[in-house]
Amino acid sequence: MSLHAVILCGGRGERFWPKSRRVQPKQFIALFSRGSLTQETSARIRPLCPPERQLFVAPVEFKAVLRRQLGPDARLAFEPTGRNTAPAIGLAAAYLKREDPDPTMVVLPADHLIEDRPGFLSAVRMGAQLARQGLLITFGIRPDRPDTGYGYIQLGRRIAGKAHVTAYRVAAFKEKPSPARARAYLAAGNYVWNSGMFIWRVDAILAAFQRFTPEFHTQLEEFAATVGTRREKQALARLYRGAPATSIDYAVMEKADNVACVRGTFDWDDVGSWLALVRHVEPDPAGNVARGLLVSKDSSNCVVDSDSGIVAALGVKDLVIVRSGDAVLVADRKQIGRMKQLLADIAGHPAGQQHL
Amino acid sequence: MSLHAVILCGGRGERFWPKSRRVQPKQFIALFSRGSLTQETSARIRPLCPPERQLFVAPVEFKAVLRRQLGPDARLAFEPTGRNTAPAIGLAAAYLKREDPDPTMVVLPADHLIEDRPGFLSAVRMGAQLARQGLLITFGIRPDRPDTGYGYIQLGRRIAGKAHVTAYRVAAFKEKPSPARARAYLAAGNYVWNSGMFIWRVDAILAAFQRFTPEFHTQLEEFAATVGTRREKQALARLYRGAPATSIDYAVMEKADNVACVRGTFDWDDVGSWLALVRHVEPDPAGNVARGLLVSKDSSNCVVDSDSGIVAALGVKDLVIVRSGDAVLVADRKQIGRMKQLLADIAGHPAGQQHL
Repeated sequence: MSLHAVILCGGRGERFWPKSRRVQPKQFIALFSRGSLTQETSARIRPLCPPERQLFVAPVEFKAVLRRQLGPDARLAFEPTGRNTAPAIGLAAAYLKREDPDPTMVVLPADHLIEDRPGFLSAVRMGAQLARQGLLITFGIRPDRPDTGYGYIQLGRRIAGKAHVTAYRVAAFKEKPSPARARAYLAAGNYVWNSGMFIWRVDAILAAFQRFTPEFHTQLEEFAATVGTRREKQALARLYRGAPATSIDYAVMEKADNVACVRGTFDWDDVGSWLALVRHVEPDPAGNVARGLLVSKDSSNCVVDSDSGIVAALGVKDLVIVRSGDAVLVADRKQIGRMKQLLADIAGHPAGQQHL
Repeated sequence: MSLHAVILCGGRGERFWPKSRRVQPKQFIALFSRGSLTQETSARIRPLCPPERQLFVAPVEFKAVLRRQLGPDARLAFEPTGRNTAPAIGLAAAYLKREDPDPTMVVLPADHLIEDRPGFLSAVRMGAQLARQGLLITFGIRPDRPDTGYGYIQLGRRIAGKAHVTAYRVAAFKEKPSPARARAYLAAGNYVWNSGMFIWRVDAILAAFQRFTPEFHTQLEEFAATVGTRREKQALARLYRGAPATSIDYAVMEKADNVACVRGTFDWDDVGSWLALVRHVEPDPAGNVARGLLVSKDSSNCVVDSDSGIVAALGVKDLVIVRSGDAVLVADRKQIGRMKQLLADIAGHPAGQQHL
């Protein structure tokens, strides 16, 4: 078997507006590092998957930015349109099956931040070993706070372990919890965050598609037969018209019985909103975190990101202030989860559309 | 007698940062009109004082912006440095006395906003008549709210009146009041806002300088003797080194006994802070006023000024948000009076200085 990385680059990144825009969403900007999150994801898995075994899956609208960031030799698979993770993973599986007799694929969202590369790689290695047995492996993150923004996985029986990495059967997948339930999960100790990273043999995930989404699996086989022919592009369009716009968790993982979870100790941040800055930038004595020049007077607990010039804050608290290009965002910290609604209003404004 | 307008352009305009900067303060920007406040002030008095009888007094650092805004023929008097209104008025008096046998001067701060030009001009006409008798005339504005940001004038005996314009002797000048006192002034009816506009015969104001600031008056006479000679520039520097950095109210008006007040009915706004926008821009249903593109979601009572691009507000209230060039200001409305302290912090920041 050989290990391929499938890097999912399909996010809209709306929660990082205005730094992230439609043409260059979150995964293509450098949020906390020198390279973009996509470039960092590629570099992180490289010791196990050299560039020729990395496949980037993205909606075709990101073609230009992907070529610019990854170079001319990167292997890219373009979706006619973004359709959540299940179709993207199916598409990648179809491509990999054609070019490798026994491929295993590690699925990595392009927009996560992990700094402990050795820790991450040892978790992937254990996942790859377990995947050989035909298991569908998720990666779970040990929670350090009762976060209500993530899905959780309830761990079952321990099935493998070595230093810092342990694998368990999965007892249950849990939706984003209430604050009380999140605290209970944290206290119980046998719950982890569902990271959205996976590893499995390609034939195992295809078998799971066949079992749980038989129609999509048939379409996928029809498409696979056209790869490399003149009919490929048309078949791809047909595949995506019929594909279920659902996540792999919903389509497969929550239903399958051969699921296991590798829990690592590496740091992990899905960089879900501007508040993630708080975890990556040192605060000033008043609790403000800022990238770019902030001068604040009697202001506290603000999160500031400015790409140039100066931001001055006077007598304000608990705000998110972002200046990027021609746009300024000022939001209440507690309401930052409602960015999607704000962007809908911007889209609905006659002069707003061009700023998305 | 002939009437000259002396337009005082010396303000720092700090309260309108970042739209107003050190090199181009408030009086040189178009806050609510097509022209800058200085250009509007010049145009407003033109029916009584044509350009050749307008004299602009400003610190020399504003030379370039004044020439650019007023053209090559404007009559400019440059101060070596800004020193409040008493020296500027003394300097203008010295110049006017040399070129006109019996000049009267109307003193107009360059940074006020008055939209009712006919009303303003009839008040000036009445002021000019009274000034002939040797009175020092202030212009008082009938208050429409208990504003604590202005000085007040207590009116005494009525001495003249015609449609919409009435003149009174001045009973007392009152400092910026407490809220309770401001409400009492408003209820009493015989208090007006001290507009900072004046009119007097040049020999009357010089006599007042002689009486109340004799040392400055002597220096002024020494300077006047050098005007038009090679020694003028040096004498000007000497005059300003010794000049009291005080307002004309403090130096003369509060002490003199030949003071009267013309109360007009014209609108007047000294545009004292960003909150002035509220009086000049129609609010949206949530009470936000904005110049430039604002898209707001669940945000109320914000004051927004943006020179380009977009400002998006999410879940915030009672903020002042200004984007101008490379700077963004986010301030609590209630603390907007503390701009000076904020700017001091910006000046003290290693990277802040360049943004003032």
